[in-house]
Amino acid sequence: MLRRQFCHGTILQDYRTHHDNNNREERMDTFECIRTRRTTRTFLPQEIPENTMHRILEAGRLTPSARNRQPWHLIAIRDQALLQRLAPLCPTGQFIEQARFAVAIVTDPANRWHEIDGARAVQNMELAGWNDGVGTCWIGSLERDKIKELLDIPPQLHLLTILPFGYPTEPDAPRRRTKKRPEEVFHWERFGQQR
Amino acid sequence: MLRRQFCHGTILQDYRTHHDNNNREERMDTFECIRTRRTTRTFLPQEIPENTMHRILEAGRLTPSARNRQPWHLIAIRDQALLQRLAPLCPTGQFIEQARFAVAIVTDPANRWHEIDGARAVQNMELAGWNDGVGTCWIGSLERDKIKELLDIPPQLHLLTILPFGYPTEPDAPRRRTKKRPEEVFHWERFGQQR
Repeated sequence: MLRRQFCHGTILQDYRTHHDNNNREERMDTFECIRTRRTTRTFLPQEIPENTMHRILEAGRLTPSARNRQPWHLIAIRDQALLQRLAPLCPTGQFIEQARFAVAIVTDPANRWHEIDGARAVQNMELAGWNDGVGTCWIGSLERDKIKELLDIPPQLHLLTILPFGYPTEPDAPRRRTKKRPEEVFHWERFGQQR
Repeated sequence: MLRRQFCHGTILQDYRTHHDNNNREERMDTFECIRTRRTTRTFLPQEIPENTMHRILEAGRLTPSARNRQPWHLIAIRDQALLQRLAPLCPTGQFIEQARFAVAIVTDPANRWHEIDGARAVQNMELAGWNDGVGTCWIGSLERDKIKELLDIPPQLHLLTILPFGYPTEPDAPRRRTKKRPEEVFHWERFGQQR
């Protein structure tokens, strides 16, 4: 049973049992999902249920794209030996070796919006994961040529990123990095106007 | 009171009363939000509540970004006269004149990931809106120089897109454009492998 407690804006949640529970009533409201999401680079060893992997992939597939071109392929990686082999090829993503599941996002540079649309798919997948208690982090630095060879990705396609997924070791940890304040980001009616 | 009925995968929802109701229990699970989201280009004249606008903007502000640089500004536009003036400057987004609210996403090209990160913020905002029954559509074609002048956007910044928001006239309309089938998008362990 998922335990959840709202307390002065803090969400405390037992992620360790979350994966046993797929009742949609128990899952998060979308805004709460966005608000509580944390970038996750340390994972528990728990397996990720099939349903959660399915929802993550579906969230990517159903993402809107420019002219509905859907310029992406999603490689679902569950093979633990393959995840181990990817780790040294991900200089800023060594934590992939602890992940139970990863998705490589492959886009088509023949489409001029391939990176923009791929990034939207990443965001959908990240939220679908967090909705089920699973965190991730966009790996920024990749040895793309070697990874493309390892994963049989055709040379003309682009490896946008890889998202390793897993249950966070500290799901209710405070945000480590600060966000800009609302008044630094929001403008009203015109640039530079506050309300 | 929000009425919602799940029926063979179709979500039927009375959006006309949705905006009166901000109980989080009534809002959508994130995966349902992603699954039921529809690109929206026709809007009802209903006002969008302050809380919903707040959540949309916050969803943008809280988006993850490369190295946490947050290379974006969000211009909230509620002035109906301004929305009217924007319409002729949006060749593929004339429907902005019916919107009750719009957000211009302005990014900083000095950051090499500005479009990717801006696209992630768009996706977060689109889902936060749909969570409250409000739809949107990424406007692809913009007369950027004229809009930047109208909105006082500094010349060195980039207008990524504008998102017009409103309650959809047909919230439960079927998806008009088809998505690729799962087997066209998903690969298992390596590119080209099915399971």
